[in-house]
Amino acid sequence: MSAATLADLADPWAYRTLGELCDTIGPRLAGSPAMARAVAWAQETMQAAGCDTVWTEPVTIPHWTRGREWARCTAPVEFDLVMLGLGLSDGTGPEGLEAEVLAVRDFDELDARSAEAAGRIVLFNMEWDGYGPTVQYRSQGASRAARHGAVAVLVRSVTANSLATPHTGMMRYEEGVPRIPAAAVTVEDAGRLQRLADAGLQPRVRLMMEARNRGETVCHNVIGEIRGAVKPQEIVLVAGHLDSWDVGTGAHDDGAGCVIALAAARRLLTGGGRPDRTVRVVFYTAEEIGGIGGTAYRDAHRDELPRHVAALESDSGAFAPAGFTVQGDSLVVAAVAGHALAVAALGAGKVSPGWSGVDIGPICKEGVPGIGHRVDGSRYFDYHHSPADTFDKIDPGELARNVAAVAGLVRSICADPVALRDRGRSAAAAGGGMQPASR
Amino acid sequence: MSAATLADLADPWAYRTLGELCDTIGPRLAGSPAMARAVAWAQETMQAAGCDTVWTEPVTIPHWTRGREWARCTAPVEFDLVMLGLGLSDGTGPEGLEAEVLAVRDFDELDARSAEAAGRIVLFNMEWDGYGPTVQYRSQGASRAARHGAVAVLVRSVTANSLATPHTGMMRYEEGVPRIPAAAVTVEDAGRLQRLADAGLQPRVRLMMEARNRGETVCHNVIGEIRGAVKPQEIVLVAGHLDSWDVGTGAHDDGAGCVIALAAARRLLTGGGRPDRTVRVVFYTAEEIGGIGGTAYRDAHRDELPRHVAALESDSGAFAPAGFTVQGDSLVVAAVAGHALAVAALGAGKVSPGWSGVDIGPICKEGVPGIGHRVDGSRYFDYHHSPADTFDKIDPGELARNVAAVAGLVRSICADPVALRDRGRSAAAAGGGMQPASR
Repeated sequence: MSAATLADLADPWAYRTLGELCDTIGPRLAGSPAMARAVAWAQETMQAAGCDTVWTEPVTIPHWTRGREWARCTAPVEFDLVMLGLGLSDGTGPEGLEAEVLAVRDFDELDARSAEAAGRIVLFNMEWDGYGPTVQYRSQGASRAARHGAVAVLVRSVTANSLATPHTGMMRYEEGVPRIPAAAVTVEDAGRLQRLADAGLQPRVRLMMEARNRGETVCHNVIGEIRGAVKPQEIVLVAGHLDSWDVGTGAHDDGAGCVIALAAARRLLTGGGRPDRTVRVVFYTAEEIGGIGGTAYRDAHRDELPRHVAALESDSGAFAPAGFTVQGDSLVVAAVAGHALAVAALGAGKVSPGWSGVDIGPICKEGVPGIGHRVDGSRYFDYHHSPADTFDKIDPGELARNVAAVAGLVRSICADPVALRDRGRSAAAAGGGMQPASR
Repeated sequence: MSAATLADLADPWAYRTLGELCDTIGPRLAGSPAMARAVAWAQETMQAAGCDTVWTEPVTIPHWTRGREWARCTAPVEFDLVMLGLGLSDGTGPEGLEAEVLAVRDFDELDARSAEAAGRIVLFNMEWDGYGPTVQYRSQGASRAARHGAVAVLVRSVTANSLATPHTGMMRYEEGVPRIPAAAVTVEDAGRLQRLADAGLQPRVRLMMEARNRGETVCHNVIGEIRGAVKPQEIVLVAGHLDSWDVGTGAHDDGAGCVIALAAARRLLTGGGRPDRTVRVVFYTAEEIGGIGGTAYRDAHRDELPRHVAALESDSGAFAPAGFTVQGDSLVVAAVAGHALAVAALGAGKVSPGWSGVDIGPICKEGVPGIGHRVDGSRYFDYHHSPADTFDKIDPGELARNVAAVAGLVRSICADPVALRDRGRSAAAAGGGMQPASR
C-alpha cells in the first residue's frame, strides 16, 4: 500500500465531516429549508477542503412537502400503523379517507382481483425480491391500483429486514390516471393486515396525509473544483448527492457518497500535491425525487462534456469497499481495472462492467466513462430511506477505506498519460478524442 | 424421535393460535381493555385445547396508562425523537417540559457530573452490555437522576440492534426521591444527542407524556387444567405470561410462551391420552409491570404448593430450542437432564442449573422445582418490548419444535414414577416428600 494510501486511511476528516452533516444539518429533502442549509454547509466545506473554486448551480425541482400524516386500522382490530407517505404523493385532504383494504401480493393478484379494488385501499404486500423487482410496487403501485378504482395505496416497505421501520421513497403518477395517495407501511403492519384479510377478517384503514405537491421550486447542485496542474482543461468528476429523504439523517444515502467524493479530492492535495487533471466534486441535488440534479448538470455542461475524462459516483453507502462498476467501452473497463490495482489491498480491486449512478447517468449516456463506487451491499437496504439511516451506522474504518479507495483510483486516473475516455474503442476507432492513446 | 414427538412437530395448532392472539387481540398491557379481551380469549382457547377445567383468578395491579406522548430536540437542531415512555413512569403534565440535556454513558459519569444534572434532562446513553447490566438504566435511571436534581430522564433503548426502534419496559421510583418522567429513546437518537453534546452543541429537548399512574385495578391470571389419570393430586405447572407491552403484539414476549405451554399440554391429550399427573397451564398477568401475577399465584395457592411437582415457564421467545435451565437441587437438575434426553433431537437436550422464570420464581422459592425453557437468544432483544415484537418474527418450524420440546419434557416428567420435587437432596434428606424416590 502506498504511503499516500496509508495517510488516507489515518485521516479522520471524512468521518468528522459526515458526522457534522448528519448530526447538525440532519435530513435534507430537496426543496426544504434543511436542504438550503446543507447547500450552504457544502460550499463552506468544499472551501475548507481546499477547492480552488466553489459554486452552485440552480436546479428547478418539484416542491413536495409531507406535513402531518397517520394511518390507523379501524376494524376488525384498532391499531396505529407505522407509516411514511411516499415522496411526491398527493395527500388525502385534512379529513383523511377510510376504506376497506384489499391486500395483494403482486400486480398479477391485483389484476385478477380487479373487481374488488374499486373504492378500496390497495395494500401491496410484496415479498422482498431484491431492490429492483420490489421497488416497482412503491414507484408504480398508486397508478396501477387507481386504474382499478382504488382510493389509496399502502405499500409494504422496500426492505429485507425490519424492526418496525418504515421506508419511504419516490413514487410517480401515470398521466391520465387518478392521483391517489400512497404511503409505505412497515413489513410488520403489512403482514398483519394481510393475515387479517386472509382470515376473512376484512380490515379497514383510515389514512390522513397532508402531503402536497406545490409546483416548482429552485434548489442547487454544489460544485467544487481542484484545478489540474498539467491538464487543467481535462475534468475528472467525482460525485454524490446531497439531498436525502426527510427521515433519518441521510448517512449512507448519500451523505457518505458526498463526503467520500470530497474527502478523496482533498486527499489528492494533502497527500502529495495537485493532481495533473482537474478534479471536479459535484454534490447533486434532488436525486431522490427524480435524479433532477444530474439531468440539470448535463444540460448546463453540455458544451464541456467532451472535456470530462471520467465521472465517478458514490451512492451505495459507506460499507466495506467492494470495487467499481464501469459504464463504458470494454477497453475503458479494462483501464479502470488497471487503475484499481492501486486500491486492491483495500478490497476495492474488483472492477466489472455495470451501472455508474443516477446522477452521472445522464452524462455517461453522452459518452463520459462512468464509474460506480461499490461497497458491501448486505445491509444497505436495511437503512435506505428510513429513520435508521443515521450516523451511528457508519463505521469509521470502512468510511476511511472508501475514501482511500476512491482517492487512489482518482489519483491513478488523473496521472494516466492517456485520458480514460480515450481508452474506449469508439474513441480509438474515431482516431482519437482529445488525447489519443499512444499505441 | 418418538411418534408422539413427530406428531407434535406436524401440528399447526400453536402457530395458528399464536397468530390469532397477536393479530386479532394485539398488544395487551395488564389493566387495559385489550388485556381483558385477551383473558376472555385465553379462557376460550384453553377450553378448545381440551382443558378439563378453566378458571381465572383476580390479581390487583397498578393501573398505568400511556396516553399521548412525544419528544423533540429543539436546539441546536430541531428534530423529533422516536420515543416510548417507560412503563409506570409519571407524565409531564399537558404542557410538557423542556430542558437542556446532560448526556452520560453510565451512572459513574452521572455521579461525577452531579452539578450539571440539576434542572436538566439526563440522557443515559449506555452501551448494550447484555440485558442485565444494561436494563438497570431503564429501571433505576429516573431516581438516580432525580437525586441529582434532574427533571426527566431519557434512556437509550435496551437493545443491541436498532433500526430506529424504541424499546419500552418497566421502571421503578425509589421511595423519597422526586418522581420524574422517564422515556426510552432509540439508539439512533441517543447517539445523535450524545454527539451533539460532545461537540459542545448543547441539545435541548421538549418532552410531553400524558402517562398516568391511576391507582390500582384488577386483572386476571388464567388457568386451565388437564386432570391426571393416575395421580391427579400432583401438579405439573406449565406457564407463560399473557400480558405484554402496549406496542408490537407481544409475539415472542410472551404470546409464544403461553401458546407453547398450552399447545404442549394439548399435545399430551392428542398425542396418546391423559397424562399420569395433572398438568396445570397458567397464563400469568402483569409480568411486565412487576411480576405481580406470579406473586399472586403463590399467595393464592400456598396451601397446595407441596402438591406442585414441577413448574416450567416459557418466556424467552420462540426461537430455536436450546434446552432448559433448572432452579432447584442438583439431583433435580440431573433428573431434568434425564427427561430432556427425550427431546435432545429437537435441540432441547441441554440442561443446566439456572433461572426458571419471573412468574414461577415465587413458587420456586417455596420449594417447587423450576424449569426455564431456553431458546436461541441471539435475536430476542432486537424485538423485546418494541413495536417489532410481532407475529412475522415467529418461525413456524421453530415454534413447533419448542412445543414438541416442552411437550416431550412434560410428558416424561408426568410419567416418572418419582415426583420431580422428590428427586431433590433436601427432600431425600428429609425422608421423603409426598412420594419418596424408591432408591
